Amino acid sequence: MKPLIIATGDLSKKNVALVLGLYDLMITQRKAKNAAQEYLASEYIQHNPTLPTGAIALGEAFTEFAATHPKLRVEVHRIIAAGNYVWAHVHFINIFSNEANDRGIAGVDIYRFDDNGKMAEHWDVLQAVPDPDTSANTNGMF
Amino acid sequence: MKPLIIATGDLSKKNVALVLGLYDLMITQRKAKNAAQEYLASEYIQHNPTLPTGAIALGEAFTEFAATHPKLRVEVHRIIAAGNYVWAHVHFINIFSNEANDRGIAGVDIYRFDDNGKMAEHWDVLQAVPDPDTSANTNGMF
Repeated sequence: MKPLIIATGDLSKKNVALVLGLYDLMITQRKAKNAAQEYLASEYIQHNPTLPTGAIALGEAFTEFAATHPKLRVEVHRIIAAGNYVWAHVHFINIFSNEANDRGIAGVDIYRFDDNGKMAEHWDVLQAVPDPDTSANTNGMF
Repeated sequence: MKPLIIATGDLSKKNVALVLGLYDLMITQRKAKNAAQEYLASEYIQHNPTLPTGAIALGEAFTEFAATHPKLRVEVHRIIAAGNYVWAHVHFINIFSNEANDRGIAGVDIYRFDDNGKMAEHWDVLQAVPDPDTSANTNGMF
């Protein structure tokens, strides 16, 4: 799917392209170590509490994760950029199972870029997508 | 606390101020119905699966929620704006208990503004903050 891109200015548009490139190389192409090397500052500060800090550690951790989640994919629904930040509203699918009915996890990833155009810090918030039959509205999480 | 504001341009800065105003009136001042009336478009589209859609419904639902969460407060850590969007990285505290050690919920709220400067659509992702002793890094979720 094509995300809604909310960005003005050349630097923000470039940073959006870098984050989309990270998802593509790390998740779609499953080259997590290459992705970490290409896109992340070596001193990458990780705030996701399940992941170790640092770029090399992320490449290694995600390589293991991908191996146990062979159908994992990500859909980027909307992505906003300003200053040296990019925030992405994403849907990780086939994370609980390999079945087509896996509802997946909704997330927002927050990336701070350094002056060299590398991602230097990352925060996220993740939530399992609930059964829509239990929802108080019919709008979906995205 | 004072949030990091990531916004350029008058409209984005104004929209950030409106979202901070919504949190203040709805959560800090506990005037949810007034906040909904002041800041939201009447046809407010709600994507949080636990809340009904519409501005009036949110004001009513949050009034009930506040009544059962007397110490609830929100800290906005960082907030980004571009185009007609504002995204906020927030920490809801005293949501699981009224005790000082309540770790709370991390969230990102996404607001889309209409052409009248009202919030017309809202998405969020929410995650309980884990015990830091169980974290794979020492950086915290914020």
